[in-house]
Amino acid sequence: MAERSRLSVFSVEGIGEITPESDLVALLAEALGASAGDDALRDGDVLVVTQKVVSKAEGRLVPLDHDDDAAKVALVESESVRVLRRRGTLLITETRHGFICANAGIDLSNVADGTAALLPVDPDRSARRLRAGLQRALDVDVAVVVSDTFGRTWRQGVTDVAIGAAGILPVLDLRGTVDANGRELVATEVCIIDEICGAADLVMGKATNTPAAVIRGCPRAWLGEGSVRSDVVRRPEDDLFR
Amino acid sequence: MAERSRLSVFSVEGIGEITPESDLVALLAEALGASAGDDALRDGDVLVVTQKVVSKAEGRLVPLDHDDDAAKVALVESESVRVLRRRGTLLITETRHGFICANAGIDLSNVADGTAALLPVDPDRSARRLRAGLQRALDVDVAVVVSDTFGRTWRQGVTDVAIGAAGILPVLDLRGTVDANGRELVATEVCIIDEICGAADLVMGKATNTPAAVIRGCPRAWLGEGSVRSDVVRRPEDDLFR
Repeated sequence: MAERSRLSVFSVEGIGEITPESDLVALLAEALGASAGDDALRDGDVLVVTQKVVSKAEGRLVPLDHDDDAAKVALVESESVRVLRRRGTLLITETRHGFICANAGIDLSNVADGTAALLPVDPDRSARRLRAGLQRALDVDVAVVVSDTFGRTWRQGVTDVAIGAAGILPVLDLRGTVDANGRELVATEVCIIDEICGAADLVMGKATNTPAAVIRGCPRAWLGEGSVRSDVVRRPEDDLFR
Repeated sequence: MAERSRLSVFSVEGIGEITPESDLVALLAEALGASAGDDALRDGDVLVVTQKVVSKAEGRLVPLDHDDDAAKVALVESESVRVLRRRGTLLITETRHGFICANAGIDLSNVADGTAALLPVDPDRSARRLRAGLQRALDVDVAVVVSDTFGRTWRQGVTDVAIGAAGILPVLDLRGTVDANGRELVATEVCIIDEICGAADLVMGKATNTPAAVIRGCPRAWLGEGSVRSDVVRRPEDDLFR
């Protein structure tokens, strides 16, 4: 019998409230250093960090009256390059990064009253910086993924997906491998990074202040250089739903 | 410091090739019974089983010449209630279940030459039957999710999502709970079941014969009665992309 594949997924606690003055690398290193015992970060771990704390630490906060619908819509439009759909104050737009999501990814929950959190300017760069910082602080080679919560077409409920990545191949290309009957798999590119963000969300919850999770046990073949913007955002000419 | 949330995810090995003569409950019970040691199924585990083995065990196989594009398209159309997009032989259609996916979910990989696997007639019922069978065979109360591999709009790569479920709440409604600043979360329905299927896919791979995985450690609050068809498939009147 083949050996089981096995992953463990656990939340990162003790990060606390993040502000533009916070040193997110230092806080993550403290929470995931030697004092974390068996849960201390190891080479090959994948650390998922939510967009909200990354945005806050990067100072991506703007004033916004949460009760002012017109101001909300104006802010969403200013953060978008294109509006795909409108229903009331809900806009589905394309951001500068190429993400298509509700309200340009602007966040009003878990931020201080009178402010809104914008997406990081370049979430792949955010992930690279966190990865390099953790390498310096803890001498570990981990992958870092920045996650956000998106709705989907045709299915109820939101799920977490990746908006930035460093040190991991976002899409695993299984073309050229063969299935169990020896036939070549022709179009099986798996977006493992979104599946990883979903797994991380299962231990983070939405209502708490748990902004990060670790996925341990990923095959080494998943690690490498990639970016969400290059590898996950679908080019308009390949997209059937624009 | 809050206690960490923690999940473990592991593949189910030793199921072997499935045919309409296979007793899928018996095979799963054998693989996940007492001989599996610490990995034996326990109350509260979530067992994810891929559509392909469920379809095969239910005899949802039809003859199809894999090289006959016209026959492929005709089969997809016969399994669909509506075609949303066409590009060459790729059709995005709505199935009778209400799923919107490529080629009506019809599967040509990992099936015998000259055949195709259709989706189960009622994947929620498939999940209920597996759940009840495992309860009888192993005296355990587990949730069962039937997963399939779908593409997504706007993002490269496929991910696994749920097409059937039993014993678990597919969408966790966090409306009415408060965020860390004490404000009510207004629109946070999380499709945990799709995140669970993604986590399961990470240990199953696509090219192997690993047709199932176990997620251990989910909060008891996630368990309950629900169905993918009722809780996950978005009603047309709520959908902005039809």
